[in-house]
Amino acid sequence: MKVDLNADMGEGFGDWTMGDDAALLDVVTSANVACGAHAGDWDVMARTMAMARDRAVGIGAHPGFPDLQGFGRRRMNFALESIENLVIWQLGAARGMAASLGAEVRHFKLHGALSNMASEDGELARAAYGAALRVDPEVILLVLAGTAQEAVARDLRARWAGEIFADRGYADDATLVPRGQPGAMIHDPEEAAARMVRFVREGAILSNGGRRIPAACDSICLHGDGPEAAAIGRAVRTALEADGVSLAPMEGRRG
Amino acid sequence: MKVDLNADMGEGFGDWTMGDDAALLDVVTSANVACGAHAGDWDVMARTMAMARDRAVGIGAHPGFPDLQGFGRRRMNFALESIENLVIWQLGAARGMAASLGAEVRHFKLHGALSNMASEDGELARAAYGAALRVDPEVILLVLAGTAQEAVARDLRARWAGEIFADRGYADDATLVPRGQPGAMIHDPEEAAARMVRFVREGAILSNGGRRIPAACDSICLHGDGPEAAAIGRAVRTALEADGVSLAPMEGRRG
Amino acid sequence: MKVDLNADMGEGFGDWTMGDDAALLDVVTSANVACGAHAGDWDVMARTMAMARDRAVGIGAHPGFPDLQGFGRRRMNFALESIENLVIWQLGAARGMAASLGAEVRHFKLHGALSNMASEDGELARAAYGAALRVDPEVILLVLAGTAQEAVARDLRARWAGEIFADRGYADDATLVPRGQPGAMIHDPEEAAARMVRFVREGAILSNGGRRIPAACDSICLHGDGPEAAAIGRAVRTALEADGVSLAPMEGRRG
Amino acid sequence: MKVDLNADMGEGFGDWTMGDDAALLDVVTSANVACGAHAGDWDVMARTMAMARDRAVGIGAHPGFPDLQGFGRRRMNFALESIENLVIWQLGAARGMAASLGAEVRHFKLHGALSNMASEDGELARAAYGAALRVDPEVILLVLAGTAQEAVARDLRARWAGEIFADRGYADDATLVPRGQPGAMIHDPEEAAARMVRFVREGAILSNGGRRIPAACDSICLHGDGPEAAAIGRAVRTALEADGVSLAPMEGRRG
Repeated sequence: MKVDLNADMGEGFGDWTMGDDAALLDVVTSANVACGAHAGDWDVMARTMAMARDRAVGIGAHPGFPDLQGFGRRRMNFALESIENLVIWQLGAARGMAASLGAEVRHFKLHGALSNMASEDGELARAAYGAALRVDPEVILLVLAGTAQEAVARDLRARWAGEIFADRGYADDATLVPRGQPGAMIHDPEEAAARMVRFVREGAILSNGGRRIPAACDSICLHGDGPEAAAIGRAVRTALEADGVSLAPMEGRRG
Repeated sequence: MKVDLNADMGEGFGDWTMGDDAALLDVVTSANVACGAHAGDWDVMARTMAMARDRAVGIGAHPGFPDLQGFGRRRMNFALESIENLVIWQLGAARGMAASLGAEVRHFKLHGALSNMASEDGELARAAYGAALRVDPEVILLVLAGTAQEAVARDLRARWAGEIFADRGYADDATLVPRGQPGAMIHDPEEAAARMVRFVREGAILSNGGRRIPAACDSICLHGDGPEAAAIGRAVRTALEADGVSLAPMEGRRG
Repeated sequence: MKVDLNADMGEGFGDWTMGDDAALLDVVTSANVACGAHAGDWDVMARTMAMARDRAVGIGAHPGFPDLQGFGRRRMNFALESIENLVIWQLGAARGMAASLGAEVRHFKLHGALSNMASEDGELARAAYGAALRVDPEVILLVLAGTAQEAVARDLRARWAGEIFADRGYADDATLVPRGQPGAMIHDPEEAAARMVRFVREGAILSNGGRRIPAACDSICLHGDGPEAAAIGRAVRTALEADGVSLAPMEGRRG
Repeated sequence: MKVDLNADMGEGFGDWTMGDDAALLDVVTSANVACGAHAGDWDVMARTMAMARDRAVGIGAHPGFPDLQGFGRRRMNFALESIENLVIWQLGAARGMAASLGAEVRHFKLHGALSNMASEDGELARAAYGAALRVDPEVILLVLAGTAQEAVARDLRARWAGEIFADRGYADDATLVPRGQPGAMIHDPEEAAARMVRFVREGAILSNGGRRIPAACDSICLHGDGPEAAAIGRAVRTALEADGVSLAPMEGRRG
């Protein structure tokens, strides 16, 4: 049994840093690398990908809205065709950088508001994923398990992997409990680790309300910008390995 | 006998346009497409490359400094490593966009101040070209004939093509007569056309002072932002074809 | 009887231009000058304001969302506090530029998506206008007549002026007929001119359906980016003056 | 006897932070606030100025080149007229923000590469300072003591204050010992404090080589981005007060 551990990275810009990428790269098996629109300029991208390559961490493109000041977290009212071009441009930049380093972009994960919108809006997800696949038909789409993202990835018969969150509680409909509500955040590394072992073993999300919702638990997301990320990551990793689950970059499934 | 006719394109941004790309694309055989740093966002790039593809015009990446307000024409004091990452990022974006359209990036030409600096400074040219070749060892470097750009392309044993200008006069040392000086600009399409036939036939730049300087006259550049560009382009094309020279996208030479 | 004639200006960026500001400045009495977020860098702003000053055209700040690629026309999901800071920053820049030229910023008009949102959402309008008034309590708010913008301007007891459109048809509820629907656009300069004389004389919007809706017809907007703008402007101006209405920069009303 | 203690602040952007502004604001008497070009968006600027106002710290505008990725540290080949417009735009934005908070911009200090260039090139310094004075003839120019900046400020008969550095060694010609050379950096807070008491008391820079160079020691700069800044600041402050020198926002001198 295998699972992937992913985190967002390369989210600095110029002299500004975000999170401790070097520490996280020692824990994760996949890195979602920002592409210059919401964060991550050419230099940050090069440094981050080189570190990932050196640790055999899988590299993914992590495109977002072109909104540095808002870190890609503000919804923007983009035309679908412009969404397509935007993700192509970012995925292309990431692929060029990886190629220059003797590495490759294995997966593709939407960032921030763009991801939120694509998890609700199948048309938008189809625009973004269809565009990515026109650049690379073999790229693995890392989707929020159980959302419109997953439905579209299946429908496109793409390679895809389902993502669950180590530090977040789930509602009975498999959506995340909104931040600010009770049970939204899991702060204790041991609790997070125990949950992830159960999710992966059962192939299901276990909601805070006690429901068991079958889900593609292919990749566990650590939030890279929190100070607890590396600690939670190490605990999750240790618990999974102790349970006989090995960690490796996602391979993706089909259909 | 063959020669290429190139022009800079895709230099709009958002709602802003620059030059008449559609008209120029009916004349040229290669298009240097801006990559989003000095001009040319994802939508402009997509539209421009699709038009080029539909006309079988060769597509090139045309990276510049990240200075939209200055259109990449202001020199910036970049570290060499950052130059490398900057051109990789832009070339990658262009390659991704071309791939999504079923096309490919065949050549690579530096823009504005970055090109001027690389024509004087071999170290900078080596950083930029070496970086481009790490993304694609087969990309054709379109160099200013007779400058440090050409010397570096030869030394790297890359594929390269030499560029001459249809609308500019040359000094006896094969450099362009600076704008503002007598003989700097050729405005008359017929004169430009006659000059280009001679340059291509002789494989040499003919200076305003009467010198004949052997040069790699592989590709003739039209300046895309002037109103005369398409008229000069048509005249050059007609004259070359009348003289038995065929026009086709550059193939590049080695060493 | 007096009325103002306004148009958006200074909407170029770097080497890119938008519309023919010099021609429009010979027609209008107020200029809404972009402030660098959706368009209009420091150089464009300086040139535009200097031309306005030389023609005794009233200068206004015209802030928009920080989205050059989308020209401020895409809705962005901004926090209200960030809207406040954004318009303060832009209004401040405009005031600084005007002061350096011996001129002043007399009015304030929201641009694009920010204006659309403020015409529907009183809280957002209050954030934007309240912020502007903290910079300059005497600045005239140029509001879309009959919308939430006007209601908030009245409620704040600010100086304000109502805006109507020379080239657009109105529905019976005083909103603009959406582009693409019959009667949305007035293309004929003479028709536009006759309409504006009636609107101003009656102090009312006359809907396409024949209703008369009393409205603050203080300033007539020409759309600066269309080729017909200057022609419509001249026709409107001529018709108003022939009818005894003089044109002058807006003075604003209170409450 | 009085002296000012200044530091650069508000140099974050969006979610990215730079230095510990809150800690520094408890130590300094003047804050140089970034204006959005090299760092410091509208929200960062608002927060920083509000904190400065609450502590009665003098607020200054700190304009730089429009190069977020390079933090304004790369030289750019700007036309002088564009330099003028660039600083006016930034100073205006800062003044607008301060006014909205019931505060004011008291001083003006160039940032990074723009400051370095202005310390060597009187024409550039004159363009920048002349432009600032056209916005506000009473703004205090904070100049690098003994450079072209000071010469131009004197020549313009502006209000100005001379700046010295707490953490840097000086050569015999009053320039800073270049980073990387022996004696360039003062790391020990007590040593820095003792030096500053001597400089201020003597009204002179004391070079590493033992020379005494009379200088306008009006304001002591702490480098805000280093971890030692607040510690050095507290030591300098304590030593000066123990010696009977009071700390207060700069007042500037004339001519």
